Amino acid sequence: MAKKIQIGVIGGRDVSSEVLMLAEEVGREIAMRGAVLICGGLGGVMEAACRGAKKVGGTTVGILPVLSADEANPYVDIPIPTGMGVARNAIIINSCDGVIAVGGSYGTLSEMAFALQKGIPLVSLKSWKFDESIVTAESPKEAVSIVFQRIGME
Amino acid sequence: MAKKIQIGVIGGRDVSSEVLMLAEEVGREIAMRGAVLICGGLGGVMEAACRGAKKVGGTTVGILPVLSADEANPYVDIPIPTGMGVARNAIIINSCDGVIAVGGSYGTLSEMAFALQKGIPLVSLKSWKFDESIVTAESPKEAVSIVFQRIGME
Amino acid sequence: MAKKIQIGVIGGRDVSSEVLMLAEEVGREIAMRGAVLICGGLGGVMEAACRGAKKVGGTTVGILPVLSADEANPYVDIPIPTGMGVARNAIIINSCDGVIAVGGSYGTLSEMAFALQKGIPLVSLKSWKFDESIVTAESPKEAVSIVFQRIGME
Amino acid sequence: MAKKIQIGVIGGRDVSSEVLMLAEEVGREIAMRGAVLICGGLGGVMEAACRGAKKVGGTTVGILPVLSADEANPYVDIPIPTGMGVARNAIIINSCDGVIAVGGSYGTLSEMAFALQKGIPLVSLKSWKFDESIVTAESPKEAVSIVFQRIGME
Repeated sequence: MAKKIQIGVIGGRDVSSEVLMLAEEVGREIAMRGAVLICGGLGGVMEAACRGAKKVGGTTVGILPVLSADEANPYVDIPIPTGMGVARNAIIINSCDGVIAVGGSYGTLSEMAFALQKGIPLVSLKSWKFDESIVTAESPKEAVSIVFQRIGME
Repeated sequence: MAKKIQIGVIGGRDVSSEVLMLAEEVGREIAMRGAVLICGGLGGVMEAACRGAKKVGGTTVGILPVLSADEANPYVDIPIPTGMGVARNAIIINSCDGVIAVGGSYGTLSEMAFALQKGIPLVSLKSWKFDESIVTAESPKEAVSIVFQRIGME
Repeated sequence: MAKKIQIGVIGGRDVSSEVLMLAEEVGREIAMRGAVLICGGLGGVMEAACRGAKKVGGTTVGILPVLSADEANPYVDIPIPTGMGVARNAIIINSCDGVIAVGGSYGTLSEMAFALQKGIPLVSLKSWKFDESIVTAESPKEAVSIVFQRIGME
Repeated sequence: MAKKIQIGVIGGRDVSSEVLMLAEEVGREIAMRGAVLICGGLGGVMEAACRGAKKVGGTTVGILPVLSADEANPYVDIPIPTGMGVARNAIIINSCDGVIAVGGSYGTLSEMAFALQKGIPLVSLKSWKFDESIVTAESPKEAVSIVFQRIGME
C-alpha cells in the first residue's frame, strides 16, 4: 500500500486577496492529484489552500505552532498542535515531498530555506526569489505541475 | 464541519505478542468509532494499533522521531517525520483528545506524564500504574470506551 | 580543555519550603564540585537550585519552555528560551551528564522517564519512585555524591 | 544582578578561510564586550567564532542539532545537544538579543528569517542580503558595533 504524496503549501497570514485566490487554487490542484496537503494550519494562505483542497474532497493536515487545535482553520482535517512556535516550521518541511510557497514573509522564508537545505522540490508563486536556484511559477497549475514533475509523479 | 476526535495509542516497540494483540484491538476500536489514530509511527504497539485501525478503514497518523517517512510502519497513512527525537513525544500528546497506553517502557512513561500534565483522558492497559490517579482497563474495548466516555463522546 | 560536567536539577514549581531547602542545597553541592547546573529556568525547585549554585559562584543554565528570557528566575546566568513548551524537557535531559529530581509532579516525571531512557545517572530526592530501578537519596549531599560517583567523577 | 547580553553568531560549516577569520574576529569582539556567544555549536563559522571568544576569556554556548555533546567544537563551554535537527535553529535565535550572520548557506538563511520575524537586531557580514531591510557591515568590528548599538548597549 503506497503512501500518498504529501505536498506543503507555505505562505503568510496577511496577504492580498489575489494571493489568497492563488493559494486556494494551489490547494485544489494538490488535492485533485490525490496528494495530502500539509500546512501550518492557521489563516491566510494556509486557510485558503485548505479550503481549495476540501472543495474537491482532499485531505488537509495543519501543523500548528500553538497548543490548541481550536486555532486551526476550519478546513484542517487533522490538526497537529505542536506548541513549539516557529520551530514547527522545520516539522512542516520534514513532512513534505515537495513544497509550494505562495506569498508570505519571514516565516515562509525560513520554510523555503529548510526546503532548500533538505533538497526537496520547491516552487515559488508570488513569493520569495532570493536566489537563482529558486524555481518560480506563473500560475497555481504550473506551480503544482512543476512540483509533481520534480517528485517524479507527473 | 466538526473535526474528528483524535486518539493516541502509546506503547513500546519491544513488547509481547499478547500486548501486540491488545494494541491491534485498541486500534480497531478507535477506528470503528470514527476517530483518527495518532501514534509515534514506529513498530511494536504503534504498528499493531495502526494495523487494527486500517483493517476497519480508519485513518492513522505517525508522528515520528526520525527524519525519514520511510521509517514509518506500513499502516501509517500520514507520516509526520519530526526529526526531533523524543521531544516528539510532547507533540503526540498535544495532538490527542485522549490517550491509551498499551504496554511500553520509559518513552511511554514520558507520554503518560505529558497526558496527565495536560489533563486529557488517559487509560492504562497493561502499562504503567505509577500513581493512584491512573485509570486502568482490563480489555481494549473497555480502554477505548472509558476514553470516549471521558471525552464526552460515549 | 575538558568541558565541565553538566548536572540537571528537575522539580516542580509548587513545592514545600522543605523541598526548596533541599533543592538549594543540591544546587550548592553541584556548583561546589565545579559542574554547571542545568534546569528548566523557572521558579520553585529550579529557582532554589540556581540560588544555591550562585551563592557559591556556580554557573546556571535555564532551558525555558517560554519565549521570553525575562521569565527566567533571577539566578539563571544563561537563559535558553526555547518557546517549545514541555518539549523542552527532552532538551534539558539531553544537556545533562546526570540528573537529580527534587520533589516535582508530572513534568518532573516526564524528565525522569527521558533520563532513564537515555541511560544517564538519575537520583530521586523526595521525588517519584515509580520503579525499582530508581535510585533514591536521603540528603542533597548524598544525591549529588551518588550522581558524581556514577558519572565516574567521585 | 543583570543578565549578560547574549549574541548569536550564525554561519555555515563549509566556508572560505577569509570568512573563518571574520568569524573569529566577530567572536572576539563579542566576548570583549562581556556578552555570551550563542551559536549552533558545530564547525566552520561556529567554531571560529567560539575560538575567537575563548581567546579573550569569553563564554560560549553551542545549541547543537545532534544528541551528542561530543560533537560540539572544542571551544564550546556549554553544549546544549537538542537532538532536534534544524528545528534547533529557532532555539538559537530565541536565545539571542542580537545576531550576526557570517557567510553561510540555507541553514543560516532560516536563522536570519527567524531573527527578522522576531525583530531582534541582525547584521549580515559577507552573508545573505535578500531584502532591503538587511543591515550589512564591512568588518567584524563594525558588525558587532551595530548590533550592540541597536540593542542599546553602545
